[in-house]
Amino acid sequence: MNIAIMGATGAIGREMLLVLEERNIKADKITLLASARSKGIEIPYQDQMLVVEELTPNSFEGVDYVLGAVSNELTKEMAPYIKKSGAVLIDNSSAFRLDANVPLVVPEINPQDALVNEGIIANPNCSTIIVLMAIQSLQKQFGLKSMVVSTYQAVSGVGVLGVEELYSQTKAYLTDEEMESKAFSQPIAFNVIPVIGSELGDHFTTEEVKMQNEGRKILHEPELIVNCTCVRVPVLRSHSASVTFTLNNQASFEQIEQALSNAEGIRYVAFSEATPLNTSNQDLVHVSRLRVDETRPNESSYTLWCCGDQIRKGAASNAVQILELLLA
Amino acid sequence: MNIAIMGATGAIGREMLLVLEERNIKADKITLLASARSKGIEIPYQDQMLVVEELTPNSFEGVDYVLGAVSNELTKEMAPYIKKSGAVLIDNSSAFRLDANVPLVVPEINPQDALVNEGIIANPNCSTIIVLMAIQSLQKQFGLKSMVVSTYQAVSGVGVLGVEELYSQTKAYLTDEEMESKAFSQPIAFNVIPVIGSELGDHFTTEEVKMQNEGRKILHEPELIVNCTCVRVPVLRSHSASVTFTLNNQASFEQIEQALSNAEGIRYVAFSEATPLNTSNQDLVHVSRLRVDETRPNESSYTLWCCGDQIRKGAASNAVQILELLLA
Repeated sequence: MNIAIMGATGAIGREMLLVLEERNIKADKITLLASARSKGIEIPYQDQMLVVEELTPNSFEGVDYVLGAVSNELTKEMAPYIKKSGAVLIDNSSAFRLDANVPLVVPEINPQDALVNEGIIANPNCSTIIVLMAIQSLQKQFGLKSMVVSTYQAVSGVGVLGVEELYSQTKAYLTDEEMESKAFSQPIAFNVIPVIGSELGDHFTTEEVKMQNEGRKILHEPELIVNCTCVRVPVLRSHSASVTFTLNNQASFEQIEQALSNAEGIRYVAFSEATPLNTSNQDLVHVSRLRVDETRPNESSYTLWCCGDQIRKGAASNAVQILELLLA
Repeated sequence: MNIAIMGATGAIGREMLLVLEERNIKADKITLLASARSKGIEIPYQDQMLVVEELTPNSFEGVDYVLGAVSNELTKEMAPYIKKSGAVLIDNSSAFRLDANVPLVVPEINPQDALVNEGIIANPNCSTIIVLMAIQSLQKQFGLKSMVVSTYQAVSGVGVLGVEELYSQTKAYLTDEEMESKAFSQPIAFNVIPVIGSELGDHFTTEEVKMQNEGRKILHEPELIVNCTCVRVPVLRSHSASVTFTLNNQASFEQIEQALSNAEGIRYVAFSEATPLNTSNQDLVHVSRLRVDETRPNESSYTLWCCGDQIRKGAASNAVQILELLLA
């Protein structure tokens, strides 16, 4: 069984290799693919050194599974060659997520969807995965009508460049030098930026509409309404969200707590523990601060806080879990 | 006319003196009061140097107005002496905010309330001022039923210690040293903390319930329901908030935009301009990102983003504006 990682030198590609190793995926060969300028870079895997190869249309011969972590454009360009080679693409880009023939999968939520595919399975948006992980056990039991979400998203959401920019701007600010902005539209050090993605006609951004569009497909809730505000914060890793959710059926505070305590893939924690620093470099989504939403007195409506590593469960780990579903 | 600043060496007390100077308040004498350990500190004001005096029960003789920026406990201790001296206390603590005999005032919203007082006028909570400033023109025209709010609060909300802690932790993190936490329960550098204040019986925090309790009083909206999540972010100055608000009466998107554009004390800005760095050290609350809230299809419900300097309009400037109302 041969696996290729497409985009192997980026933040998510590197994490995919780490997760393959951690989860002890038995592969005969792992091929690391990246752009020409990364060719020859050596990355350790188990007791070997893997050498990065240049990604070309001919990269996929003999490959069974491709873990994709490149741009939408490059993914669309490579998809026909991956299909031709007979490999299955597990894709982290948003190129095919809403395609009717492409399952969009969070293994704890809709594993069965992964098994009916035409060679592409999509990995959802990172914030979407984290919020849906927090809410999934409640949706299963009580149905999900709507959510009002405000996010607190880490700079690594845009990859290594975002991390470098937060570091360099922070150092510049502390030494009274000017902060240079490239990865973000504004300085992010000691700041928050209330815009992620580009603005659509209804003034929501491309990032904000993902949670409704992808959430409907993953949860099989075609009527779900999500009002999302996506905000970048000066955090290196792990996205957080404040989530007010309204269920279709009545659920008591105790029933909600019970469901959260028993849910797979989340840790229902005390008061102040669900922070980016506490959830970085591991796979559990932390959930806390459950409260009754008194603004909808006649509905079953609550507020919670959740936080999870968007490079791990929000991307790389979720993709490797999908691979495990296919291998099982 | 004699003014005293009680707590003159703290973040808010220092800003009060700055705002008195900027707004050219004509005082015969300004007395700076602080704890014994700050006695003798010199602070420039116009072309003079003012010398900090120790705060004692005898500090208020001959004083007409006291601008208060000390703890609830110390405020309660000093209030009887201030009253006895005949001075009026404009108080930034939360000691008297919900007292029926104490007006709670944002001059752009309920200036008339300030004029009926028994010697104490309270300055509202900083996040409350910023969110209410954003929403006030809409509430006046259409009535306000409820709000779901998530905040992004700066470390200076706890004063100079918070600022020092963010600086020292940031430097420690960048040099791989351990981060020491004193002002906050967890490290705040490169992190967010989803708890401000202490937890109440319904799991909301003391900080979170202020927006409903104080909002009802300031807006004269006794039925207002606010569901607030207060979060600390690694920002030095200016609080931000994502606000979903539901009005009592129907209002079109254009009517809302019009009201925001004409409102006193706010600047309705494009897309990405309402950030902490852009709003620090000035008094206008920036508002942006107005969108229709589709989760309440049968109501007049919208979402916006707002951001303002919580030491200025959220505290010191608002207090000096109250003083101006009394002097007028």
